[in-house]
Amino acid sequence: MEDIGMAMHKLCEKLFPICRSITGAGFRESLKILKNDMQLNDLNMFEVATGTKCFDWEVPKEWNIRDAYIITPDGKKICDFQVSNLHVVGYSIPVNQEISLEELQKHLYSLPEQPNAIPYITSYYQERWGFCITQQERDTLKPGTYQVYIDSDLRDGSLTYGELIIPGETEEEIFLSTYLCHPSMANNELSGPVVTVFLAKWLLSLPSRKYTYRIIIIPETIGSITYLSRHHEAMKQNIIAGFNITCVGDDRAYSYLPSKTGDTLADKVAKHVLTHTHPEFVSYSFLDRGSDERQYCSKGIDLPVCSIMRTKYGCYPEYHTSLDDLELVTATGLLGSYEVLKKTIECLEANEVLATKFLCEPQLGKRGLHPTIGTKNSSLVVKNMMNFLAYCDGVSTNLEIAEKINAPLWALQDTINKLKAEDLLISVNLVSDHADSCEYSKLLI
Amino acid sequence: MEDIGMAMHKLCEKLFPICRSITGAGFRESLKILKNDMQLNDLNMFEVATGTKCFDWEVPKEWNIRDAYIITPDGKKICDFQVSNLHVVGYSIPVNQEISLEELQKHLYSLPEQPNAIPYITSYYQERWGFCITQQERDTLKPGTYQVYIDSDLRDGSLTYGELIIPGETEEEIFLSTYLCHPSMANNELSGPVVTVFLAKWLLSLPSRKYTYRIIIIPETIGSITYLSRHHEAMKQNIIAGFNITCVGDDRAYSYLPSKTGDTLADKVAKHVLTHTHPEFVSYSFLDRGSDERQYCSKGIDLPVCSIMRTKYGCYPEYHTSLDDLELVTATGLLGSYEVLKKTIECLEANEVLATKFLCEPQLGKRGLHPTIGTKNSSLVVKNMMNFLAYCDGVSTNLEIAEKINAPLWALQDTINKLKAEDLLISVNLVSDHADSCEYSKLLI
Amino acid sequence: MEDIGMAMHKLCEKLFPICRSITGAGFRESLKILKNDMQLNDLNMFEVATGTKCFDWEVPKEWNIRDAYIITPDGKKICDFQVSNLHVVGYSIPVNQEISLEELQKHLYSLPEQPNAIPYITSYYQERWGFCITQQERDTLKPGTYQVYIDSDLRDGSLTYGELIIPGETEEEIFLSTYLCHPSMANNELSGPVVTVFLAKWLLSLPSRKYTYRIIIIPETIGSITYLSRHHEAMKQNIIAGFNITCVGDDRAYSYLPSKTGDTLADKVAKHVLTHTHPEFVSYSFLDRGSDERQYCSKGIDLPVCSIMRTKYGCYPEYHTSLDDLELVTATGLLGSYEVLKKTIECLEANEVLATKFLCEPQLGKRGLHPTIGTKNSSLVVKNMMNFLAYCDGVSTNLEIAEKINAPLWALQDTINKLKAEDLLISVNLVSDHADSCEYSKLLI
Repeated sequence: MEDIGMAMHKLCEKLFPICRSITGAGFRESLKILKNDMQLNDLNMFEVATGTKCFDWEVPKEWNIRDAYIITPDGKKICDFQVSNLHVVGYSIPVNQEISLEELQKHLYSLPEQPNAIPYITSYYQERWGFCITQQERDTLKPGTYQVYIDSDLRDGSLTYGELIIPGETEEEIFLSTYLCHPSMANNELSGPVVTVFLAKWLLSLPSRKYTYRIIIIPETIGSITYLSRHHEAMKQNIIAGFNITCVGDDRAYSYLPSKTGDTLADKVAKHVLTHTHPEFVSYSFLDRGSDERQYCSKGIDLPVCSIMRTKYGCYPEYHTSLDDLELVTATGLLGSYEVLKKTIECLEANEVLATKFLCEPQLGKRGLHPTIGTKNSSLVVKNMMNFLAYCDGVSTNLEIAEKINAPLWALQDTINKLKAEDLLISVNLVSDHADSCEYSKLLI
Repeated sequence: MEDIGMAMHKLCEKLFPICRSITGAGFRESLKILKNDMQLNDLNMFEVATGTKCFDWEVPKEWNIRDAYIITPDGKKICDFQVSNLHVVGYSIPVNQEISLEELQKHLYSLPEQPNAIPYITSYYQERWGFCITQQERDTLKPGTYQVYIDSDLRDGSLTYGELIIPGETEEEIFLSTYLCHPSMANNELSGPVVTVFLAKWLLSLPSRKYTYRIIIIPETIGSITYLSRHHEAMKQNIIAGFNITCVGDDRAYSYLPSKTGDTLADKVAKHVLTHTHPEFVSYSFLDRGSDERQYCSKGIDLPVCSIMRTKYGCYPEYHTSLDDLELVTATGLLGSYEVLKKTIECLEANEVLATKFLCEPQLGKRGLHPTIGTKNSSLVVKNMMNFLAYCDGVSTNLEIAEKINAPLWALQDTINKLKAEDLLISVNLVSDHADSCEYSKLLI
Repeated sequence: MEDIGMAMHKLCEKLFPICRSITGAGFRESLKILKNDMQLNDLNMFEVATGTKCFDWEVPKEWNIRDAYIITPDGKKICDFQVSNLHVVGYSIPVNQEISLEELQKHLYSLPEQPNAIPYITSYYQERWGFCITQQERDTLKPGTYQVYIDSDLRDGSLTYGELIIPGETEEEIFLSTYLCHPSMANNELSGPVVTVFLAKWLLSLPSRKYTYRIIIIPETIGSITYLSRHHEAMKQNIIAGFNITCVGDDRAYSYLPSKTGDTLADKVAKHVLTHTHPEFVSYSFLDRGSDERQYCSKGIDLPVCSIMRTKYGCYPEYHTSLDDLELVTATGLLGSYEVLKKTIECLEANEVLATKFLCEPQLGKRGLHPTIGTKNSSLVVKNMMNFLAYCDGVSTNLEIAEKINAPLWALQDTINKLKAEDLLISVNLVSDHADSCEYSKLLI
């Protein structure tokens, strides 16, 4: 398993230097690497033309950049795009001119509180140009004439995204969404797409899956809006739980950010897994959201999507700066997220509605499931079995029962299998959590 | 605004000396002063005849008093009604006789724990006479013959109350109730009617009002019962929120006393305003009630009425004694209540159901509602706007959304206005909170 | 009342030496003593034949034992059944042979952590034989040849239980269940059946009872399963509240163990009584259950049954050992449980739905129910009366109102009687708590 963490970190390293944005060659190249390196042959790439209407938005022009720098009055090259692509404000229009320091200052972005960090700045929807620079370097700039050069273009083109549908036994879907539009930053955001493709690989390796998996790799915000504008009806119809996968690479914390209602199946399973594996996890409010769940949980869309993260975007000092690098993101950090998300999916796959086939408790002793001798003590396994049976009512899901009896679902699985093998339980068709719960009970009565 | 506090205090001063009771000339005179001084031409005065049946009660005889005192064996005049009308037990029958100190003691009321206070004592429904005296003075009384004199009469007459209907765009009503039956006391109770008439004046000054305002100035208990016996059906039909206005004059605290269910629109808005303006406010239980909400929230009446107060009746030492005077009640104390009640009404007037007209978040940048440059930080205004939109579902009221996103409704108003101006929101007919919530949602589906 | 505690303790003393098990002569003899000593002529004894199918179980063979002991190599008689019937593993098959110490050890049970205690061990559903011994004595055993002798038999016979139906005005039932299958132990379990028969005696002494009482004295687990297999439909139909009566004899604590939902009428009244009489009571989770409520609250049975106990089984060191004796169980311990259970039943009998017959508060003064003089203070009795009336809506039960107004139901009874005598309240037919609450309200509208 250690190897998976290392492999994920290596893939991050390969992708790190590429200059990505919400459109353009860098995004396309990165997506191809994910597809090819992971042999995800069914990961399809889609292009949506500039100007395409998507609800209240439209797909912007495509941005591409080849080079950029500033030449100081001393002839020194600074803010060199070849050194760090963060030096250029995302979506900068081309420029090539000589200007005074005073004029240049209007186009510079730095962080006085983090003097050694290059900030990550974008201007997608208003045309401007600019450079990002450490405060330390900015403070050394002397009056004089500066040459500013950005070799970019902003033209009609397309927005790119990837979609991988992994079919399951039912049309009900688990949805995984991650974004790939950030340039050279690691926790936010290379960790998300990298962990996601490794999860995809694992899902494909399973002999069977109950649910269909809809996995998308998009540019943030405009990507989710574009994707929703094409698929929201099917998504509303089929998705029973979804996760926005972002900031899953550092080692400092586990975090949970709920869906709008906070009580969808996705929320329930996320909290169940985190409570039983990392009880110290940080629980945010929906009001703290700031990624694609903004769209997935917007009014009228209202998908059951929450986020399981390591340290949340906006909550660590390196966020959206050059300090969010491949030292911050570690193999163990990536592996921890992978494991938690895997367990989350395993719980969803294992979740079902069972009913006991008898009244009163069954006689477990004659089946070898209960000690034949009565003493002062009873074991946790027997206690969990009895508690599970008490709630096994043909209405509650296994996950709900596990929550009620304070046991992780995975610790009950062996017991459930034994009870099934003894023909003590029958399976009730699982009507998903997103169905109206009244309807649900009616079906079962 | 300071001026309003001063003006309210001055009106209290003018009314203070008058001897009011649940019926009689003092109540009538006080009500006329409120009407004339505030030029409330539409404030109508009603008279309900003695003996009129009101549910389980009947209107009592009318009580009037001209003078009262005791002459001590030394010839000294004490308990002089002209000095303080609290010296006479309310509704005392006339008396004029010489009695021993021993006999007199049976008719004296004092407070051993508050030796310098004259208590406020009444006997509305059993005929008796009595004097109220400070414990200090009572302790000086020597054996001998005392002359007791009360020039009062208790005869068939009527109960007086005032009613002001301020029409609005809808027949739905906001209800304000206050009582004027206490003699020379200030927090409980001249503050209530004085703050209420100033609120009425402000309401009349508004260019328009969504709601109709039903404002009544009554004697406590028998007044609310009498009024309800005449109007309860219309009140049940129309009132969406009401407030009993009492103890709104001192400077020491803000208090909230809920309606019976504690979750009516009146409760929600009262708690919203107090939480965001005076978070240290004291929250009482419905079981602590003791004023006209006893009737408004009685079984079968069940109006959505709660109380916003400064220091609650029964919870301050000067309560129902001569120490509840015009030093206890201050201009700033009155003004604080006026402001909170005004904000409460403004929230009710601003409350509405809105729905977004698009799926996903709208593109706020192109409308100048969002910064065009993406950085590490986002402003509270933008965060509130995004959060407001997420919950703007055509079912939740603005007030409910404000509560969910932890923002005062008044701080969202500018944002709401801008979003309306951009045609991003549509107004959904507000079905009031007192309608069945199931019905409510059906209407919107 | 002291006498009742003493009488209960004496009955425990009489029953203590008898060797009871889930079947057999000891159970039968004990049940007859309970019936005859308490003159419970309507307590019927039932026999259910070995092999009878009861859901997933069947009635086991009947076990009877006459004598048992071990002769040491020194010729000393130890583990003498005549000294303590706990020395023999319950349901031991007969044995009479000479064996080595090594072989004997496999058949001995002791408690290293409680070296002076004989453990209580059973093996109902697998045939074996064994002796229970203190660790102290076990440690003294020397190598050599031991004679082991158990004069028991395990043959087709029957399971015995007692049932007492005490009729009431309605067919709705209060259910009391207790078990008598433990040999010489006192808190768990002679306290249960003894307190139960004294409650039965008290119920029979009442001039009338609203509810019918179904009282059963059974062997634990197999007894409740057997009884349910014969009566569960009638029980589901009629039982509105039930209590498993066990561990009600010691002096150390009061405990409450909820039903599966925790909000049945039984739970509500149990918590109401304990909160107002022994607020320090210990509240367990349904997950901590371990007695016949396991069956009563099993899926599909789901009866409204909870437990009021002194110190709960499994939660005191003497549990299931010879140390659970008649010093641990005291007259005051038994009496405390009796009193609490009696009050619980009295609350159920007193529980009803009342409605006020007027709008607004009634005029209590003219009826002598309210002081005629108005002062600063009001009494708790008047406050409770006003609060009771405010919630007296023809839907809430008295018990629910008592909870809302933080008063014990018994403290309100005098007030309720006075209000009824004044014709201020009408009785609404009580539809029990176990009816669907929606249906319930419909009936009342």
